[in-house]
Amino acid sequence: MSVSMPHIGALPAGARNSITDVPGVAVGQCTLADGACQTGVTVVLPHGGNLFTDKVPAAATVLNGFGKSVGLVQVEELGVLETPIALSNTFAVGALSQAQIRQAIAANPEIGRAWPTVNPLVFECNDGYLNDIQAMAVQQAHYAQACAAASVDFAQGAVGAGRGMSSFGLKGGIGSASRHVGGYHVGVLVQANFGTLPSFTVAGARLGGLLAERLRAHTQAPAESGPEKGSIIMILATDAPLDARQLRRLSLRAGAGLARTGSVFGHGSGDIALAFSTAYTVPQQAGAPMPALAMLHETRLDTLFHAAADSVEQAILHALWQAETVRGRDGHQRVALRELMPELPQWLLRTAPTN
Amino acid sequence: MSVSMPHIGALPAGARNSITDVPGVAVGQCTLADGACQTGVTVVLPHGGNLFTDKVPAAATVLNGFGKSVGLVQVEELGVLETPIALSNTFAVGALSQAQIRQAIAANPEIGRAWPTVNPLVFECNDGYLNDIQAMAVQQAHYAQACAAASVDFAQGAVGAGRGMSSFGLKGGIGSASRHVGGYHVGVLVQANFGTLPSFTVAGARLGGLLAERLRAHTQAPAESGPEKGSIIMILATDAPLDARQLRRLSLRAGAGLARTGSVFGHGSGDIALAFSTAYTVPQQAGAPMPALAMLHETRLDTLFHAAADSVEQAILHALWQAETVRGRDGHQRVALRELMPELPQWLLRTAPTN
Amino acid sequence: MSVSMPHIGALPAGARNSITDVPGVAVGQCTLADGACQTGVTVVLPHGGNLFTDKVPAAATVLNGFGKSVGLVQVEELGVLETPIALSNTFAVGALSQAQIRQAIAANPEIGRAWPTVNPLVFECNDGYLNDIQAMAVQQAHYAQACAAASVDFAQGAVGAGRGMSSFGLKGGIGSASRHVGGYHVGVLVQANFGTLPSFTVAGARLGGLLAERLRAHTQAPAESGPEKGSIIMILATDAPLDARQLRRLSLRAGAGLARTGSVFGHGSGDIALAFSTAYTVPQQAGAPMPALAMLHETRLDTLFHAAADSVEQAILHALWQAETVRGRDGHQRVALRELMPELPQWLLRTAPTN
Amino acid sequence: MSVSMPHIGALPAGARNSITDVPGVAVGQCTLADGACQTGVTVVLPHGGNLFTDKVPAAATVLNGFGKSVGLVQVEELGVLETPIALSNTFAVGALSQAQIRQAIAANPEIGRAWPTVNPLVFECNDGYLNDIQAMAVQQAHYAQACAAASVDFAQGAVGAGRGMSSFGLKGGIGSASRHVGGYHVGVLVQANFGTLPSFTVAGARLGGLLAERLRAHTQAPAESGPEKGSIIMILATDAPLDARQLRRLSLRAGAGLARTGSVFGHGSGDIALAFSTAYTVPQQAGAPMPALAMLHETRLDTLFHAAADSVEQAILHALWQAETVRGRDGHQRVALRELMPELPQWLLRTAPTN
Repeated sequence: MSVSMPHIGALPAGARNSITDVPGVAVGQCTLADGACQTGVTVVLPHGGNLFTDKVPAAATVLNGFGKSVGLVQVEELGVLETPIALSNTFAVGALSQAQIRQAIAANPEIGRAWPTVNPLVFECNDGYLNDIQAMAVQQAHYAQACAAASVDFAQGAVGAGRGMSSFGLKGGIGSASRHVGGYHVGVLVQANFGTLPSFTVAGARLGGLLAERLRAHTQAPAESGPEKGSIIMILATDAPLDARQLRRLSLRAGAGLARTGSVFGHGSGDIALAFSTAYTVPQQAGAPMPALAMLHETRLDTLFHAAADSVEQAILHALWQAETVRGRDGHQRVALRELMPELPQWLLRTAPTN
Repeated sequence: MSVSMPHIGALPAGARNSITDVPGVAVGQCTLADGACQTGVTVVLPHGGNLFTDKVPAAATVLNGFGKSVGLVQVEELGVLETPIALSNTFAVGALSQAQIRQAIAANPEIGRAWPTVNPLVFECNDGYLNDIQAMAVQQAHYAQACAAASVDFAQGAVGAGRGMSSFGLKGGIGSASRHVGGYHVGVLVQANFGTLPSFTVAGARLGGLLAERLRAHTQAPAESGPEKGSIIMILATDAPLDARQLRRLSLRAGAGLARTGSVFGHGSGDIALAFSTAYTVPQQAGAPMPALAMLHETRLDTLFHAAADSVEQAILHALWQAETVRGRDGHQRVALRELMPELPQWLLRTAPTN
Repeated sequence: MSVSMPHIGALPAGARNSITDVPGVAVGQCTLADGACQTGVTVVLPHGGNLFTDKVPAAATVLNGFGKSVGLVQVEELGVLETPIALSNTFAVGALSQAQIRQAIAANPEIGRAWPTVNPLVFECNDGYLNDIQAMAVQQAHYAQACAAASVDFAQGAVGAGRGMSSFGLKGGIGSASRHVGGYHVGVLVQANFGTLPSFTVAGARLGGLLAERLRAHTQAPAESGPEKGSIIMILATDAPLDARQLRRLSLRAGAGLARTGSVFGHGSGDIALAFSTAYTVPQQAGAPMPALAMLHETRLDTLFHAAADSVEQAILHALWQAETVRGRDGHQRVALRELMPELPQWLLRTAPTN
Repeated sequence: MSVSMPHIGALPAGARNSITDVPGVAVGQCTLADGACQTGVTVVLPHGGNLFTDKVPAAATVLNGFGKSVGLVQVEELGVLETPIALSNTFAVGALSQAQIRQAIAANPEIGRAWPTVNPLVFECNDGYLNDIQAMAVQQAHYAQACAAASVDFAQGAVGAGRGMSSFGLKGGIGSASRHVGGYHVGVLVQANFGTLPSFTVAGARLGGLLAERLRAHTQAPAESGPEKGSIIMILATDAPLDARQLRRLSLRAGAGLARTGSVFGHGSGDIALAFSTAYTVPQQAGAPMPALAMLHETRLDTLFHAAADSVEQAILHALWQAETVRGRDGHQRVALRELMPELPQWLLRTAPTN
């Protein structure tokens, strides 16, 4: 993509400006786009091995719990992930959690027999505006397809779990970004399905009024009004050695980046952030050696907090900027930001008051 | 049942000594018992109407989050239930949450369209010792069957979601009890799948040693050892007018009753309590009148706390006492408490040191 | 003040643009400014009556718990305030909590005898850069003075608990703002002692670079660097009928307003928000009638969330804009924003990219 | 003490059956017993060094937040203690937190100057029945006296912070116990001020009725009735290598031991547990090396959970058994359990139904 969104904040991006700048992390997607069916699956793999036997430390912050994810109760208690992270639409959670269980059993046949059960981890946003969500089109096989497609390179915008997403009354979707600080990476992937147009803010500029006008001209219809009905899922990865308590602190800072784009964590928006570290793994087997590495000193978290907030803000901008216009069920459509305001990057450079 | 467990505590039981003493509450079950398949579904219906349009106030306490329930994130945020409560085995959560979504859409076709999505609420325990849990036998239709069977009268023990449960190395299952205090009821239903035999305590008497000896004689095999791998789900209903904050306080007291039976909320046990009130409903529609009744004064909660703890302890005893011996996958069996020690009620009366 | 900060957001301010726009709320302050002693006390009174016998509903969100407040454990459990809210420096918490206890006993002699004890509620920020905090200058009498001065009109900036505050490397202090929406008010008072200069953002404009340059010129010294060591306390009042669970949700949205000013809830910053409602009171006496009014429907919270975030952002700008330069211990000084950039309001109007 | 309470549970006690079995832990006390003044201070020192520069990992569980402690907000966020733990009466919290600040500054003069402020940690129970709590007799000097008296040997019962405590309508106080499992110790110290006589349970035996009768005979007065107004503070120490998340899990299990004695975590009872580990320290200085040791595998927590619950139950029995009768303000008195039922240990051995 030749023209890009302005860089947020003072910290440098990683090589890909993506969650896959964190070594070992991969992202896979499966997109369903056919008429009234506009949805999909995105998976984030913390490492390429067996996550049940080699778990990664993790923690989450629920900024607003109007959401139907599965898996957070155990993550909070035990501080680890034991499956890939799956993202999709609200009514796909059941199918995807079953797919995760089957995949984990296939790799670890003792699950549910000599070993305890596995904890699926599925997040969701409601894509019911564009997608016929009642049709429950996402099947277990789509999870396997998304996993099979996992790579350090992946598309952003109206793809995977982002296919049916709406954000700020425009087309939302999957976005990613990263920062590289103090020898560590913080990478973020968002599923952006939140926000009302009047509050949309890009790098400090409140663009709601201008975009509402253009949207009316473009669609020949009055803009929607009403409260936020969306959600945002924010996945944070880092290679810094953090324990679950520190990762919870890191995940909360996603809220700072989110707020800068105009969100107030609206009542109807399930706003959830999950952070994991790839610096070490925690063994399933009690007999295996436990990791014995030094965690980061607490005062060194400050820079990571900035990296988290900046990466989230940036990833949201990427999600909207890279999305294409999508038409879905009952003639509904969401117009791409890029279509409404192709000159946005230049415009921001010109008008940015100072830095 | 002619001979019953001793009454726990000083407060009187309700007429049925069951969660259905709380007016409006019904329980339905569907049992799958065939060879290696020993599992089922239990549902608790807070009222007989449309729970999505007329929600009930609710809150939960996670005593130990080694569990894979779905729905608690939203209950904690919004303080209401909008579906029946479903209980089953760990790998049935996905199928049951999809069944709840379909049932809610059938009754409210605007869910996921003009209205937001619905929040499924499914709890689980791992019945993998008796049941071939990997087979994922529970289907969406079983949820509908359980709902259709809902009644104020229901069986306890090795039925419904209790079919495959193990508790204290013995046969566990579904149990219920209630207390009637100050004009209000507190009713409890438990899915008991927790505990190790050495710590089993009945009305203050530590019976682990005696029962371990009898179990060895009965099975001609050494008793299992090792840590707790079970879980317990405790559903508390009341007709006292409590708000979500007060219901959270009430739900925590389930832990006191649980501890008295010998539990220390073991590492591998998902121990979760959820409390709801039937005193009022909260409308889905913003235009509908909100309830305007006086909540209970905080100091009046104390008696309800005793009722909650006593009902949970009693319900656990009922679950074990009413269970029959079950044989399941790979020749595994769990022996019924009643079979090992039929004289338990009389024995307790004789030896109870004082009260 | 003839020239004022730009209005944040689309919602109208209350008549005073202050927390005292919420009927019944008053603010009192006591300032200690003498050489190395630069500190003080600010109190917020939810109503003019006896708060122990007529408590107000309340709840808090701890965005970052690097803080030494007293009283939040009980607020979270019981959902009410029973004293005025006191703000001061970190080492004054002990003296102020004793003062609150004595004041409550004076009005209610049965506290600690026939009645239970009273829950003091004191928040703090560390003013040790300007103030000789080790001297522990704040005494119990200062609390009484602040209470005696309570009024709907009160000064902002470097006064009361704001006297020794630093914010974004500039002079911080006490600020207030309000919004009037749907017939209800949301009012905010902040004690702003947070932020690093490079991240300072005013109405979307990142002013850190420009101000750092001016500060160097002004002080003839390089700007401080290093992590955030401050804190911010955000008190939210509303006359909307909300219960404690809803007030907790409201308090969290303070974080959105805070983030827009450049905060990432830094590691060393105790960032805490507390919200209370004046719509009803909860009686101490179990025999007294409990309030029986309808709470706001959950979907109507959305506008209040915007009001909370906008008021917090506005109140922070007021705190900095109304502060004067203060010199304190060991020659330390904090320069007022107004002194460095008196043209800021006009500058913002001229450069604001759009709205 | 020649005759002792029965041993709780199957795990062996440490050499002293006291919190000081955890190597490095010491306890100091200061008792104020003069007419209407019946109160005191107890301190627990995790190690003998400088706690501000070498912090210990810690976490807490608030079972019921009707309490006025100070310090938990920061413990929850940062997962460390940086002062000794102080226990006293409710209105002494302010004075003791100031004493802790002064002591920390004396040892670390940069606190509040170049370094951040220190987090006092004070817990309390209301001793207003026996003690003239309104007199606020506890002064800063009493904290220093308690610290100076710190030792591995210390008195239990009606001493230190336990002087004015009531428990189950009898004399409460300070109690301690420990368990030794898997090469690690778990030690507990409780400040027992909770419980109503009818629910008092000793090693499974409900003694309320019998003791109420004896109390009536002893005092020639009807027993008090009414709800619980007390509290209990439970401090857990261990030398097992646990991080803050694991310590939070451990602290919750104090509730299991507490429940076995008859508590339902009554509405008016501030029931709080705090756990710390002495296995490593966390440096204040960012440049100092961070600990790099392996934490315990999660599955190995189970035995520690039993040790925690058993130690808490045992420590509560010790508190009551070792207490003497105390007379305090306005002719109030609390009779010692030992005085009412000196034969209790033998009686329990005789009647214990089984084990």
